[in-house]
Amino acid sequence: MSFQNPVFIPGPTNMPEDVRKACDMPTIDHRSPLFGTILQPCLENVRKVMKSDSARIFIFPSTGTGGWETALSNTLSPGDTVLAARNGMFSHRWIDMCQRHGLGMHVVETPWGEGIPAARYEEILTADKEHKIKAVLATHNETATGVRSDIGAIRRAMDAAGHPAMLFVDGVSSIGSMDFRFDDWGVDVAVTGSQKGFMLPAGLAIVGFSERAVAASRTARLPRTFFDIADMGRGYAANAYPYTPAVGLMNGLKYSSGLLLEEGLEAVFARHHRIAEGVRRAVQAWGLQLCAADPSLYSDTVSAIRTPEGFDATSIVAHAAERYGVAFGTGLGEVAGKVFRIGHLGSLTDVMMLSGLATAEMCMADLGLEIRLGSGVAAAQEYYRSARAGALKAAA
Amino acid sequence: MSFQNPVFIPGPTNMPEDVRKACDMPTIDHRSPLFGTILQPCLENVRKVMKSDSARIFIFPSTGTGGWETALSNTLSPGDTVLAARNGMFSHRWIDMCQRHGLGMHVVETPWGEGIPAARYEEILTADKEHKIKAVLATHNETATGVRSDIGAIRRAMDAAGHPAMLFVDGVSSIGSMDFRFDDWGVDVAVTGSQKGFMLPAGLAIVGFSERAVAASRTARLPRTFFDIADMGRGYAANAYPYTPAVGLMNGLKYSSGLLLEEGLEAVFARHHRIAEGVRRAVQAWGLQLCAADPSLYSDTVSAIRTPEGFDATSIVAHAAERYGVAFGTGLGEVAGKVFRIGHLGSLTDVMMLSGLATAEMCMADLGLEIRLGSGVAAAQEYYRSARAGALKAAA
Amino acid sequence: MSFQNPVFIPGPTNMPEDVRKACDMPTIDHRSPLFGTILQPCLENVRKVMKSDSARIFIFPSTGTGGWETALSNTLSPGDTVLAARNGMFSHRWIDMCQRHGLGMHVVETPWGEGIPAARYEEILTADKEHKIKAVLATHNETATGVRSDIGAIRRAMDAAGHPAMLFVDGVSSIGSMDFRFDDWGVDVAVTGSQKGFMLPAGLAIVGFSERAVAASRTARLPRTFFDIADMGRGYAANAYPYTPAVGLMNGLKYSSGLLLEEGLEAVFARHHRIAEGVRRAVQAWGLQLCAADPSLYSDTVSAIRTPEGFDATSIVAHAAERYGVAFGTGLGEVAGKVFRIGHLGSLTDVMMLSGLATAEMCMADLGLEIRLGSGVAAAQEYYRSARAGALKAAA
Amino acid sequence: MSFQNPVFIPGPTNMPEDVRKACDMPTIDHRSPLFGTILQPCLENVRKVMKSDSARIFIFPSTGTGGWETALSNTLSPGDTVLAARNGMFSHRWIDMCQRHGLGMHVVETPWGEGIPAARYEEILTADKEHKIKAVLATHNETATGVRSDIGAIRRAMDAAGHPAMLFVDGVSSIGSMDFRFDDWGVDVAVTGSQKGFMLPAGLAIVGFSERAVAASRTARLPRTFFDIADMGRGYAANAYPYTPAVGLMNGLKYSSGLLLEEGLEAVFARHHRIAEGVRRAVQAWGLQLCAADPSLYSDTVSAIRTPEGFDATSIVAHAAERYGVAFGTGLGEVAGKVFRIGHLGSLTDVMMLSGLATAEMCMADLGLEIRLGSGVAAAQEYYRSARAGALKAAA
Repeated sequence: MSFQNPVFIPGPTNMPEDVRKACDMPTIDHRSPLFGTILQPCLENVRKVMKSDSARIFIFPSTGTGGWETALSNTLSPGDTVLAARNGMFSHRWIDMCQRHGLGMHVVETPWGEGIPAARYEEILTADKEHKIKAVLATHNETATGVRSDIGAIRRAMDAAGHPAMLFVDGVSSIGSMDFRFDDWGVDVAVTGSQKGFMLPAGLAIVGFSERAVAASRTARLPRTFFDIADMGRGYAANAYPYTPAVGLMNGLKYSSGLLLEEGLEAVFARHHRIAEGVRRAVQAWGLQLCAADPSLYSDTVSAIRTPEGFDATSIVAHAAERYGVAFGTGLGEVAGKVFRIGHLGSLTDVMMLSGLATAEMCMADLGLEIRLGSGVAAAQEYYRSARAGALKAAA
Repeated sequence: MSFQNPVFIPGPTNMPEDVRKACDMPTIDHRSPLFGTILQPCLENVRKVMKSDSARIFIFPSTGTGGWETALSNTLSPGDTVLAARNGMFSHRWIDMCQRHGLGMHVVETPWGEGIPAARYEEILTADKEHKIKAVLATHNETATGVRSDIGAIRRAMDAAGHPAMLFVDGVSSIGSMDFRFDDWGVDVAVTGSQKGFMLPAGLAIVGFSERAVAASRTARLPRTFFDIADMGRGYAANAYPYTPAVGLMNGLKYSSGLLLEEGLEAVFARHHRIAEGVRRAVQAWGLQLCAADPSLYSDTVSAIRTPEGFDATSIVAHAAERYGVAFGTGLGEVAGKVFRIGHLGSLTDVMMLSGLATAEMCMADLGLEIRLGSGVAAAQEYYRSARAGALKAAA
Repeated sequence: MSFQNPVFIPGPTNMPEDVRKACDMPTIDHRSPLFGTILQPCLENVRKVMKSDSARIFIFPSTGTGGWETALSNTLSPGDTVLAARNGMFSHRWIDMCQRHGLGMHVVETPWGEGIPAARYEEILTADKEHKIKAVLATHNETATGVRSDIGAIRRAMDAAGHPAMLFVDGVSSIGSMDFRFDDWGVDVAVTGSQKGFMLPAGLAIVGFSERAVAASRTARLPRTFFDIADMGRGYAANAYPYTPAVGLMNGLKYSSGLLLEEGLEAVFARHHRIAEGVRRAVQAWGLQLCAADPSLYSDTVSAIRTPEGFDATSIVAHAAERYGVAFGTGLGEVAGKVFRIGHLGSLTDVMMLSGLATAEMCMADLGLEIRLGSGVAAAQEYYRSARAGALKAAA
Repeated sequence: MSFQNPVFIPGPTNMPEDVRKACDMPTIDHRSPLFGTILQPCLENVRKVMKSDSARIFIFPSTGTGGWETALSNTLSPGDTVLAARNGMFSHRWIDMCQRHGLGMHVVETPWGEGIPAARYEEILTADKEHKIKAVLATHNETATGVRSDIGAIRRAMDAAGHPAMLFVDGVSSIGSMDFRFDDWGVDVAVTGSQKGFMLPAGLAIVGFSERAVAASRTARLPRTFFDIADMGRGYAANAYPYTPAVGLMNGLKYSSGLLLEEGLEAVFARHHRIAEGVRRAVQAWGLQLCAADPSLYSDTVSAIRTPEGFDATSIVAHAAERYGVAFGTGLGEVAGKVFRIGHLGSLTDVMMLSGLATAEMCMADLGLEIRLGSGVAAAQEYYRSARAGALKAAA
């Protein structure tokens, strides 16, 4: 019997019952007015989740990777230069995509586990007197290392340098789970997908464009058709879509984004923080270290946990799947074999998380690591108990 | 967001994904041959799950309580005497039903936490020279106390007494989860429902009748119409049903009984035993006692756990629901306030069970019991690890 | 590929998408407050659908047949006399149930196709000076013949006779689809099920009791346990249920009864009338007769259609299922082989109905009846067009 | 109450019950072996549905439009020339995409309603002595006009010209519904989506590449990342995917492609032909013309029906939606207002189709066209009856 245990991968997440039902729709005519009752709330809710008053939202039947391509191909031209930091597998892949699109790259190599160095960005932008750099990339939450970078600091660095480049932020594993401020941070393109904070199956690239980014699209010369925002957005006001939309997923997005707004974004973020902090307490109790180099960098959606030297961290993931039917995430790229990852975003409870921690303990013990069974669980229990009790007091 | 955590009540159980889908059927014409493709496998699979070659199976749109009424009203006449032991709330209710149907009762009052005293049954039956006792009731698994009685011993007592009474067994919380031997034990009527070992929503009374019990129905004079087995079974061979069947639930039963048989009944029982034993290890680690008086009585589907004198056990259940969104069972009747119950039957994994144990620990600590967080979890983890490893070795 | 075509049986009906989803629930603890959020709206909505301010509603995991037994066994005692008319298979079965419960019967044999003769009831009741008749039965809509009787006339007959008998109405195939007035008609017990006007799977008996019927239950001596309304209703105020409720079905009932009330009962009745009238126009165009003897008796939920002498009407039903995958109803009892039935209740549209009529035409032609293809469809189309256009004009 | 009537648009289609359930999956770890049990059958089944022994299949979270881009961007380089015929909106859009990717176009303007002129292709290819033309585009089934072109004839034209260009076929509204012969026709890239013959929600681009097309991708210089087949296919053998796959849709594809193969492709094609022919008989009975200029061009998945001069065909579609809750397709581009379209592909029965035809009749009559109600229905009924009877005879 399968599908019984929750998943603890950093997305796709566990899905709320009613979100699944919203996705599972009979066929409708997407050219009928009914489609507008799905499209328009999606656009409005997503904009609110991104904390923007004015971002143009576009929703593609694709994934976050398609969202990256949307950001680049709509705003840049062959030969343009892009500034980016490489501090994990996902920032690496976005850089790779730039290169394959013929863009010039200014890459700041950054230790995996560190955040994006805003000061270094400021130096580089200040030195770019000719403004060859057209776009600055920032991976808000590096899913590979569990590191959350400070996007506000990057905006301040850009402003301090007085540089006109656009700011593109990969918010795939942050938007809808951790604070994301499109307007406050002066984001020009924000990219996410359906399968993380929105708690849906994979299948949608969700992007927000600032007016400036939309304006840039009018002259950008990278080729694009499927991901062209002009085609995509042209008919939105009339509820038209340039090709067949993924109606069920969008109905799910309408529903799940509504859930987030109803709960309140700050409450959603606090919930993710609480569950994540319990995981971190467990890691500490196990005597292990996070990949993230500093508490200021800790991600509330995924924790990458370093295992002792000489131990293959990936074996934990394989063993958990095979022996206990539980899914964790492996280390990727530079940290492959060195970390395993626990996803703690989306539709999750303290109670579900405790079963993940208990399973991790069993796996580590089975594989010979010196872990006291129940130790991490106890640390998380203690934290969850006090956080719950504290929340009640605060509400009283 | 609700429905996220598994339930830990002693039924209805958590349901496998595909069983839910099997229940969620479009409307069919239950008078068409399609219905036969559902009815016949249900009858055959249920018979196999009861370990019988010849039992007549009847499936009513009702519950286990309706199954009790089916047993009595089809086989007995006003004034008949019934022998039963009262050792928990569910045996108590069946006795009450007998009385309300005008049957004479010979009740063996038994401490709650003890099993049915087969020796006492033998004495009584031996003394009943005139064979006024027409039926012997036995609650295989007392859901209220977590006590499994020895039905084989009761059959041996009846045989030793040379008494011709029929044997009626309430297998509501045992059939499909713990070993049940209709033929070997000479059971005349077995009663269960859909929402326990069969992992379905409530809504079906499922009963098995021996040839002898069917014969008794021809002369039994208690009034019955809805629960009349003659009406119910008359058209089965032609796939007919005396009124509108609960087709979706029966399609679910076809599927879930198929799952049990595919896994193998002994493997199903071993799985329930493993998960239950982990719970018992946790209880021991907490320094608490089970309601069941002796290890030979321990139920593999539900554990009733005594809390210290002066502590209201029901507060754990209320607190778990309110604070953590987790459902446990309260104590009922004589043991109300004295025990709380953890259900561990149906669609459950070691991993899910650990989250239930972790929650119980948090609740007990929140409510002031001296429980070391993680202690029960650790004991269960240790057991689950070794049981899993042992199973692998055994298979090798 | 199955399940594609709608069914045209007189229940279970086609189900609305969202009603199916409401039924398909994860397991909850039915002893938690969550259950109250399902139970209470069910009780209140059902009462409104029955047009009563004060009826006590009880919901059993059973079927309409169980509802009949609930009506009888809670209010009557052995030897009581019951007055009933037999004018179809379902009134026949209720009469049979009375007899099997040891009740004395005063049966008014009525031609199948006629309604209940209120004048005859009045004569009989007037003659019953000693008030031996305790209950008057009335099948509001005879599903076997497509005949709707006039319950208001029966109440007037009872009043004219000055007779104190209780009035029990079988509203299984009328409540929620055709006008039913519990209070206005002075109904004492109303019986229905989940699978007709409520558009749910079978599995619930839904009954309403007047205060007088509840009072009668305190002294009634027919044996009852599963169907005892005292047990059933005792805990309702505290959201308690005497055994495990069929939670998913009840959640569906909450939802579907809410749909009916939201649409407005008169609009629901008008919709059923419109669809039914289209069917009747088709029957007329085919040159066939309804079983119902007079237009005042025409049912808006099912039409029983007489086929020519010497033709086996049942062959249409078998052929439709086998050749075209469409379900109609056969004739039952006295009209077996003489009629076939088209159900037109529940979740149905004009458009769906037209496919049913078109299929009936193909079947009749295939089997050699002289039917002009498209003739009945055209008559129904004409009616639906004008009814739709008229509704728009009326709304303007 | 919505979602009750089937849709009659040329995709997305009505979905089989079990296909919807296959799509509605809990989250799994797409990096676990479980994903392989979904991916591999998808690849193998799709290949079989395309009638190829060797095509490489790639499945993108996208739509047919993304499939077009995949075909072009993986095989061509800036400045390459492409030959295409424009005979409808969808061929027009693919041509437009080529132009936006900087490809040189040789467009054969073709009356909408005509098929692709193979002879003209041969002339052009013969004249292209320098082989500047690298790819020949062919829209197998023009969804806008209901015209099926002869791909075999195009292959023969290419061979007759001795031209080495690759052959790219848009099979979006043909594959899985009408005969498609990847190998026999020497197709190099075939493009389809999930929401037509595969009866799934939109959200997958499904493409097949010949070895030659794969070889071309190694040197093709159009930029591509999301749609790069090298990235996409690299890990397939190890069940790896370059980004997060749309697992649920793929599970649906595994299931629905399995259904097609189980039914047998020729039976699937015959079923589509039968339902389509019924529609054509109705159109004839109405005295109307198809947009398709010749019976040899008639599509078995969609019929575009010309309405009389001066009548706005789109009003039928709007009226059907508003008055009867039924979805038809409007005319697009050159034939906007001149035709309305009836889709008849995917999960559909004769019976469902008859309700669509009956609705079209009501709409046309409501809007003042001289249509005899029931006339088209009768013509279709007659055809369906004889086709069904004939099929039975043939099977006997």
